[in-house]
Amino acid sequence: MFTITSPNTATLEQIQHKIDDKTKPLGALGQLEVIATQLALIQQTDTITVNQPHLLVFAGDHGIAQHGLSIAPSEVTTQMVMNFLAGGAAINCFCRTNGMALKVIDAGTKLEADDHPQLLKQRQGNGTEDFSQQAAMSVAIAQQGLELGGSIVANLHQQGCNLVGFGEMGIGNTSSAAAIMAAILSIPADECVGRGTGISDEQLERKQALITQALDLHQAQLDSPLNILACLGGFEIAQITGGMLKAAELKMTVLVDGFISTAAAMLATEMHPEANHYFIYCHCSEESGHQRMLQHLNAKPLLDLGLRLGEGTGAALALPMIRSACEFYNEMASFSEAGVTV
Amino acid sequence: MFTITSPNTATLEQIQHKIDDKTKPLGALGQLEVIATQLALIQQTDTITVNQPHLLVFAGDHGIAQHGLSIAPSEVTTQMVMNFLAGGAAINCFCRTNGMALKVIDAGTKLEADDHPQLLKQRQGNGTEDFSQQAAMSVAIAQQGLELGGSIVANLHQQGCNLVGFGEMGIGNTSSAAAIMAAILSIPADECVGRGTGISDEQLERKQALITQALDLHQAQLDSPLNILACLGGFEIAQITGGMLKAAELKMTVLVDGFISTAAAMLATEMHPEANHYFIYCHCSEESGHQRMLQHLNAKPLLDLGLRLGEGTGAALALPMIRSACEFYNEMASFSEAGVTV
Repeated sequence: MFTITSPNTATLEQIQHKIDDKTKPLGALGQLEVIATQLALIQQTDTITVNQPHLLVFAGDHGIAQHGLSIAPSEVTTQMVMNFLAGGAAINCFCRTNGMALKVIDAGTKLEADDHPQLLKQRQGNGTEDFSQQAAMSVAIAQQGLELGGSIVANLHQQGCNLVGFGEMGIGNTSSAAAIMAAILSIPADECVGRGTGISDEQLERKQALITQALDLHQAQLDSPLNILACLGGFEIAQITGGMLKAAELKMTVLVDGFISTAAAMLATEMHPEANHYFIYCHCSEESGHQRMLQHLNAKPLLDLGLRLGEGTGAALALPMIRSACEFYNEMASFSEAGVTV
Repeated sequence: MFTITSPNTATLEQIQHKIDDKTKPLGALGQLEVIATQLALIQQTDTITVNQPHLLVFAGDHGIAQHGLSIAPSEVTTQMVMNFLAGGAAINCFCRTNGMALKVIDAGTKLEADDHPQLLKQRQGNGTEDFSQQAAMSVAIAQQGLELGGSIVANLHQQGCNLVGFGEMGIGNTSSAAAIMAAILSIPADECVGRGTGISDEQLERKQALITQALDLHQAQLDSPLNILACLGGFEIAQITGGMLKAAELKMTVLVDGFISTAAAMLATEMHPEANHYFIYCHCSEESGHQRMLQHLNAKPLLDLGLRLGEGTGAALALPMIRSACEFYNEMASFSEAGVTV
């Protein structure tokens, strides 16, 4: 469905030389040098850019939420969608401050929000099935989710966008992300399950037990990333995964947010390992499993601000770092230009 | 010389309630909540702002540099000043990208740069004395440095600026900062001395030995922060310290950059502990002693990007986080405003 190739690395030496010739000690800009190199490889140009950056928030509900393992009921997913559309959520604030366009996608909430000019409806159901009892969705629906997510990104690309961040909203989706993580890494659920946005000890224990049980139930099916997505995923996670893969296909830069967004990135890279070259891991969330996910992906996140909100907040906060990396790569003087004699 | 009072904390409960009533789980915005609280306490207003943010880069040379313990000779300080004025350095790039005005101050370079409309000359000499042999400067000059730094900040405040970041350029100034750190913390020099912008093992050993010797030489004098500044400091460090203290006096927010800027913050807080309420520690540098400095100041830095450049680069990169904190504090919807029922 996606044709993804790694960036051409023939220019790597030239890129490194350009960075090393800037008026600074070798390597002194740390991770910004890594980001500049990554963008230069992706874009294959001497002047790297962030054009029309977009943050896509995908909302979806989860059947597993009926077990009361979140701090809020599924209705809150739709309420938060309305909040995004009214401009009142954290992600609205951070997109405004950091110059990022925001799009909200209903991938399948339990309650359907009213139509709104800023809301794109790609509903795949009224929430997934309870994956502790059956597959969250069929393989065909999972595949459809990948396509739907990809189509949004393809549209943005056509309009000139070259960088896209992915966020989400979905009560219960840390359960889904933790299960996906456990399945991909083949590790016990309790090493993956965390407190989400803040559940109690008792809820945490029940969440671990329920996900362990679900993993047992589906074990025979968890043999491919697409099947893992179908058994354990969510509509928002499917569409994010597809969006990330389409972005990689189109050689756009992808900003990966927190725990759920990273679970989608894990699925994406399991399907197409080359996709990882296009991904920037924006922050390390407080969710306990996130750090291990990042290690698996060999990712050093840009920010570590103790966030545990999702919505794409970490991606929007990281955007100024990406812009700063572009600016130094494009505009910073070389030693000879500046007459500096080191 | 400076009259600094802690922010009034009578509104703390009200501030916390405002943050906790935003449409997000309690504490989910991590360090941005800490920053918002700090600004709300400093500014004592319901709407917190970043007005006319300025980054001040102070340049000064160091007599200790004659021992060849840096990657570059003192002449490079002046060459980099010219680079700042031409807009070609990393700090120019990051200030442009992140909407921060930049001012360059010559606090006393070895070679005097030509006059330039963007260059403020507050020269206290052609570099300090070699502090391995004698005091870097007299106590009177150190005191003058505090005043000179303070006067710039007072001018900015008068023009409506309420946030100021401090950066520096000075070949040899990691030696000075490490010596200040060792004196304030009463710990051996080799726990404070690092590789600066990238010296060899052999240079590192000589740097440690030289600073150990200097600390022995001045030991009897290192009994007050002003005396520590005079014995071991630099003109740029003196002026930064004064600028930070004046900003705290005027209830402005201070962005502290890396190792040298933090050494100035240590001096400032030794002189006036209340000043620390106005300081935001922007990043953790790669310089080995910086983390320990931050621990001493009870500071959790916002960014950790592997930078080791100075110039104020970490402060300019952190500014979007401060703006994002303001935006969520001012504009994010409360549960009742958004109709979210958690």
